[in-house]
Order: sequence, then C-alpha cells, then structure tokens
Amino acid sequence: MTDASAPRPKPRRARGLMDRRGPALALERELIANIAKVYEDWGFEPLETPAFEYAEALGKFLPDQDRPNEGVFAFEDDEEWVALRYDLTAPLARFVAENFDALPKPYRRWAAGPVWRNEKPGPGRYREFWQCDADTVGSASPAADAEMIAMASAALGAAIGDAGRPFLKVSDRRLLDGLLETLSFTEGRSPEQSRLIVLRAIDKLDRLGDDGVRDLLMAGRKDASGDFTPGAGLVLREAEDVIDFVRGTEVDSDDAVLNFLANKLAKSKRGTEGVEALGQLQQCAKALGLGPKDWRIDTSIVRGLEYYTGAVFEASIDDTSKYGSVGGGGRYDDLVARFRGEQVPATGFSIGVSRLATVLEARGSDAVEIGPVVVLVMDQARVADALAMADELRRAGVRAEAYLGAAGMKAQLKYADKRASPIAVIQGGDELAKGVVTLKDLKLGAKIASGLGEDREAYAKAREQVQVEVPRDQIVAAVQQMLAR
Amino acid sequence: MTDASAPRPKPRRARGLMDRRGPALALERELIANIAKVYEDWGFEPLETPAFEYAEALGKFLPDQDRPNEGVFAFEDDEEWVALRYDLTAPLARFVAENFDALPKPYRRWAAGPVWRNEKPGPGRYREFWQCDADTVGSASPAADAEMIAMASAALGAAIGDAGRPFLKVSDRRLLDGLLETLSFTEGRSPEQSRLIVLRAIDKLDRLGDDGVRDLLMAGRKDASGDFTPGAGLVLREAEDVIDFVRGTEVDSDDAVLNFLANKLAKSKRGTEGVEALGQLQQCAKALGLGPKDWRIDTSIVRGLEYYTGAVFEASIDDTSKYGSVGGGGRYDDLVARFRGEQVPATGFSIGVSRLATVLEARGSDAVEIGPVVVLVMDQARVADALAMADELRRAGVRAEAYLGAAGMKAQLKYADKRASPIAVIQGGDELAKGVVTLKDLKLGAKIASGLGEDREAYAKAREQVQVEVPRDQIVAAVQQMLAR
Repeated sequence: MTDASAPRPKPRRARGLMDRRGPALALERELIANIAKVYEDWGFEPLETPAFEYAEALGKFLPDQDRPNEGVFAFEDDEEWVALRYDLTAPLARFVAENFDALPKPYRRWAAGPVWRNEKPGPGRYREFWQCDADTVGSASPAADAEMIAMASAALGAAIGDAGRPFLKVSDRRLLDGLLETLSFTEGRSPEQSRLIVLRAIDKLDRLGDDGVRDLLMAGRKDASGDFTPGAGLVLREAEDVIDFVRGTEVDSDDAVLNFLANKLAKSKRGTEGVEALGQLQQCAKALGLGPKDWRIDTSIVRGLEYYTGAVFEASIDDTSKYGSVGGGGRYDDLVARFRGEQVPATGFSIGVSRLATVLEARGSDAVEIGPVVVLVMDQARVADALAMADELRRAGVRAEAYLGAAGMKAQLKYADKRASPIAVIQGGDELAKGVVTLKDLKLGAKIASGLGEDREAYAKAREQVQVEVPRDQIVAAVQQMLAR
Repeated sequence: MTDASAPRPKPRRARGLMDRRGPALALERELIANIAKVYEDWGFEPLETPAFEYAEALGKFLPDQDRPNEGVFAFEDDEEWVALRYDLTAPLARFVAENFDALPKPYRRWAAGPVWRNEKPGPGRYREFWQCDADTVGSASPAADAEMIAMASAALGAAIGDAGRPFLKVSDRRLLDGLLETLSFTEGRSPEQSRLIVLRAIDKLDRLGDDGVRDLLMAGRKDASGDFTPGAGLVLREAEDVIDFVRGTEVDSDDAVLNFLANKLAKSKRGTEGVEALGQLQQCAKALGLGPKDWRIDTSIVRGLEYYTGAVFEASIDDTSKYGSVGGGGRYDDLVARFRGEQVPATGFSIGVSRLATVLEARGSDAVEIGPVVVLVMDQARVADALAMADELRRAGVRAEAYLGAAGMKAQLKYADKRASPIAVIQGGDELAKGVVTLKDLKLGAKIASGLGEDREAYAKAREQVQVEVPRDQIVAAVQQMLAR
C-alpha cells in the first residue's frame, strides 16, 4: 500500500485545533461527569444532537459577523448548506421545535460536547472547544433563571472542589433596552445596530475604562494601532448616562441596586419589566440558598450571543476577573419562535469545560499519576507468558499490561517510567528456572535513586527493598501488597 | 429580535443524522464507560483528537469511493481542504506521526467519539455514529493482535453483561494476498484493484451465496434490479479456488484451519507469513484465556477499510450474524509510514457504540426509568417555596425539581408522569395553613389505578396508601422513606 517514492503529507493537526491526552483529558472528563451529576440531580435529562445542522436552522447569532461564514464552519451537502454547531443552544431550539408535542413542558435537558467556531485562533483560543449546558425550555418564570444560576453555582462547585468558589454576575437585557429608549442616535442606524454597538462598548468597560467606552458610545475610538472603531453616535450627556448606569450597580447591596435601576428606568415599560424580573430572581435565588458571596447584579454583563432577550449570566471562579469567565448564559425567549411562530420562553447556562480545566490546572493539583503495572518481556519467544501474567493481574482488579515492543530491558524500564507505572514484573531465564518473578517498585526506586547519588553501598541496600523475588504463583498477592505500601 | 412576518425555517435535523435523548442516550454512555474501563485496565490511555483534519492527513481509505468527496464531509478552510474524521484511526496515525518522539513506544491509547461518513443514509444507517477504539502503535508482534481480540472480548462482555456472549472472527489480509499471487487477472486491472474486487466479493458470501460470489469473481453479476457489477475476471477454476479457500476455514478446530491454510499457501511467502502470524496469535489468545467459544479463524472476514495490512478482526454478539458486526479492527502497519517514511506497525479495535446499543435494546431491558421528584407549584406567587423544597431534597441526595411551567395541577401531574417521576410533592393553601405537604407516590398510584377499574371503594382505600400528609419539616425523611418502599 505504501509507495516509498510518493510525496509524504506533513503530520499536522488543522489550524486552531487541539489534541488532548492522558491526565489532562482525564481531568476534563471528570469535570464533565461532576457537572452532569449536578444537572441530573436537578432534574435535567441528557440530549445529544448531531455535530452539524442545516445552516438555516442554526441562524446567525454569533458576535463575530465579520469572520468567514459569519463565524461558523459551513459546507454544502446535497445542495443544502449545513454548518457545524457553534453552541449547544441553537441545536436545542431546532430539536424542541421539531419534537414539540412529544416533549414534557417545560423541557429540561443537559448536553455536553464540542462546538466549533470559525474564529482567528490565538493563545488559549481554539476553534473547537467543549461546552456543558443545561436549559429549561417552556418556562417564562424568573424562577427558572434563578434556578440556572443556583445550579451553575452548584455544578461549578462540584467540578472544582476546594480550588475556589464560583461567583455569578447577573443582568437583564431589558434594562439596557429601557435605557436605550431614552437615548438619541444621530448616525441613522437601526435601533438593533445601535443597541449592538452600545452592548459591545459596555462589554469593553473592564479593558478600556470609562474614557475608551465614552469614545465608543460617542463618535468612535482610535486604538493604539491606529484602527478606528465607529461609535454609537450618542451625545456626551447620554454617554455619561450609559456609563453611570453600569457603574451604578457596583455597590454591595442588591436591594440598593434594584432601587437604583428602578428609579433610572421608571419611565420605560421594558426597563421596568427587567427590574421586576430581577427582583423575583433575587427572591428565588435566596430560596435556593444563594447569598452575596455567590452572586450579584451587575449591569456590565453583556454576553456576546445575540439571541438573549432577558436575564443574562456570567460565571467566574472567585469574584475576580483573573481567570475570566468560565461560563455564562441567559434567557432566549425567541429562539424556538423562529421555527414555530409562537413564543416558547427558555433559559440556559453553558459551562466552558476547557476554560474551567485551564483554571484548575493553573491552580495546580496534588494528584500523582499512577499508570498500569508493566510485565516486561525478556525473551520474545515467551511473550505469551507475559500476556498471561498481565491477564492474571487484571482479573484480580489490577491495571496491567505486557510490554509489546521489541526493545531490550533498559528501554522497557524507561517505557514503564513514561507510563507512570508503579511496578515492573520481570521474569528472565534464571527466574523462570527457579519458578519466580522479580517485582520492581518503580515509584520507590525513583525516590531512592534521586536521593542517593553515587553511594554504592546505600544503593545496593535500597535495591533490596525495591526489588523482591516472589514465587510465580503468588504474583497477584505480592503486587497488591506492593501497590498498597 | 423575532420578526413575525419573516419566513420561518423548518425545524429538521440534517439528513441521515440522529438526535438521542433520555434513557437511550444514558444506555450508550454507560456502554462507553464500561468499555473505557476495560481499555484503561489493560493499560490504554485516553486521547481526543479534533473532529476535523486536513484532508491530506486523513488519506483515502474508505470503501465507498464512488460517494461525493470519497465518503467524507469536506470543506475548505483558509485555502486548505479539511474533512470530518471518518474513523478514529486515521487521526491517531496523524497524532502519532506529529508527536512521535514524545510518546512512549508502543503507544497504547483508547478514544471514544463521533465519526462522520458521507454515505447514503438508510434504516439504521446514519451519517454520524460513535466509535470506541483502542490501538497499540509500535508493535509488530502478533501478541498485540491477540491482545486486541482478548480485550475486545472483555470490553464487549463488560458492556453487555448477561445479554449475550461476544464472539470474534479473525483472518489475515496476507492470506488472501498469498492466494491472489497464484491467480491470473484477465481484465488488465492493477493488482490493487483486483484485490479490492476479490475482497468485496468475499465480503458478500453470506448475502449472495457461492453462486453470486462466483459471478463476481468471474465476469460480473447482474442483481434483481438489473444493475450490473463488473467482476474480477477470474476463470472458473480460480473462482472455485477462492471460494474453497474461504469455505475451507469453516471447521471447528483452529489447528485444522491452520494446517489447511499452510498447505494451500505453501508456495507463497506472504501467505505463509500470514499463516505463521495467525499461529502465534492463536498461542497468545490461549494465554489470555480465550477459547473456541470466544473466537475462531474465518477467512471470510474482510473489513472494508483499505489500510489493513495483516490481521483483521470482526466481533458479533453470540456466534450468529443475526445482529451483524458490533465492532472490528486489524493491523495497519503502513498508516503512520504515510507521514514518516519508516514503518510504524500498529493494530487496533473499534467498537460501534450505536450498533451495540441497538443489539441491547433489541434484547430488551428490565430497567425501570426513575425520574426526579417533582415539587408542584399550586400558586405562582409561592414558587420560591417550591424551589426551596426541591433544594432541601437535593441537598439530602434526592434528585428533585420544582415545576417551572405555568399550568394547573392536573397538567403538572401529567408532567411528573412524563418525567417518570416517583413522587409529587404538593402544598396547596390548606396544606400551607396546616404546615404540611402532601406526598403522592406516582409509581404506586399508576399501579393501583391500572388494576382497579371503576371500584370507588377500593380506589378510595388505595388512595390512602398512595397519598400521605407529612409535616413540612419532615419532608426529606418522608420522601426517602417513600422512595425506599
């Protein structure tokens, strides 16, 4: 099959993608399992939709619309455009609309899986990443939003254990809608466009500060590289109003925040709706055991996706922006209506699994990797004996494998080290003749070797403890004993 | 956001794809977890590669080369062609070649995930399906092949429990290569093309019988619909030779099979290599505890993928073709060499998770689905009370949720039924005044209702047992007690 003269392809994974293996992957899988356990306990059932959907069904809700295919990976199939899912929410909306009559209402589901975004890759920014979502479809109640933040708090807590405390920030899209009703826009844009520019400007408050955001809200802003971003076209007083609106929620008491917002938005029906919904959410959050160490109202929370219509959430670990957001979500009452016409209110939360794993890795872990016991093969003609020994160990519940390469003893021990193996099992010709095997404690061996330097006598003595000879028929008990110490 | 006059997209999943939810999905996940546990016990570490790869890196090894894009879903990204993976083996070869120096050799990994094939969908034939693979890269030893079939047997056994016994059929591509050396091909095709036609013909022996396969090996075959499949161009004596070669291994003793093959292929170096490798595999399989109830040599095993170079495996549940193959694999010594030039021998096994789940579902299951306890909401103003009750139950380890829709009591009880809920918790105005809640045992209620018909007295009596009133502060203990009975 292989033609030696044929040009060889270069082995490289596609741009912006990631391979994950061993303990790092195991950590991510454990995170997902712990999050899923919480979602299931809260009454959510699993759902798995396909990796791609008709592009029309996914809709166009990503923030980066200047990217190719508006941020998605799309291709033609049987003369219809399909696209890899960019989140787990848009496919859920399609699924609910397609199976509406068969589903319990509200329909509560969780899902975990990769999503794909056709974005410019960068450090820590990949084009495939895992999300773990929960959504309640068919409930307009702020209780459902409160449940989302309480469950997100519980799920993140279960996932990270002692490594930190989850913190949620909550806002409502209707607040800003209410504020915008009072503002003029001189640039002749549609209200939707202006809303988007204002949202994006607020989203940059942390990074650009009041001055930068004020520029973006007014005529526009030129950054250090000379690039110009057009502004929302507000006059100074209006821009200050928007900034005050966001800064005004930076106080400790949620009651004070709600009063501030109620006064500010008293003239707007939509804004007042948002404030009232937040008030009910606050009551329900309290009933679910959440306090000021767990969450607060913060109008600087924007969330990039355009389908949100009400409450929006953002989660971090501890109340700092050090590691950035590890999840977010919100209410999207119109997403199912795209298909059905009638409104189907919904709310959901998405945890960024890869991001959460990065936070945990940055905080370090004490876990020591323990690989399989490795049975060495000293004579290729006797590989079946090694297979049988490994099998005996496995049947007794011990992770074990026979070495299946062609290398000598030294390389086999190096292999065992690379596999984080705790014990090597060795049966050379002498041992075979005596009916014994040698067990080598690799973890202890490494410890002694690193502390003993060139002292031959001490080395010889330590070796006695590290290597033991046991009868062939007592191999299982001896390995279990060595593993236990 | 929603424009009522805008044309509404139809909610439909893309062609040939599948949504999976609830218990069916949970079953698949459990299968994967059980298989993965075995792979880990045997010393394999997890790996996750991305969903798509440069098309060049994946290569062209699918059998259905007459399909668009040769059976894959491909699209252009930054002026390079990428394609969704069609299996988990081709990405592994890329990964090993890209990270060769950093990996332990042999490199043993398992992987689970969806793969995509651009095939014509049909009943039970989807274009996205899950595989769960294990591979040993860097071992030329038949011991590694034997390990694959023993591990596949153990993994399938762990996955299906009492539902059946895994059975493996094993052949070696070199056997047929040896046989083909002795045959003439009159059609002027390349040896590779002829080999492929012969392989495909043999693969159809079960379905078409000797006569149909003989036609395919000679001039070609017209099927019932009138479609003509060109043949391999053998003369009658040669075609009979091929059929004898396959039928000749349909005997009980593997020793007899090996003798038959050794005689048949004595003149071919490559054929003899294959027979010798099978002999060593047989010895190793015995050392790993496999007997004639677990596997046998069967030269009718072909496997569709073109990258196999030596041993090939196929697994079913019990030794019948009733449910078809639930997995397969083989040796592919040249796949990494595509990138590196030098040969890196490898062997692997892939379990078709969806197919396995279908087998299990067809055999039925006694498992009764138990959903979450549902706390009803009798007064929307008191939803926070319901949230708090559900939270109390969860903190005590009971799956529970508050009903978050807007419907009345009857619809809420229907909802609880649809969720397979064991208990409904009810606190109306009367109960609130008395400081109690009503617990309704829904499973018992359903049982009694279905058996009692119109007998009002019996119904009233049963109702007493089904519904109990408990003080609000004893809700957790009372629910746990009811769940336990």
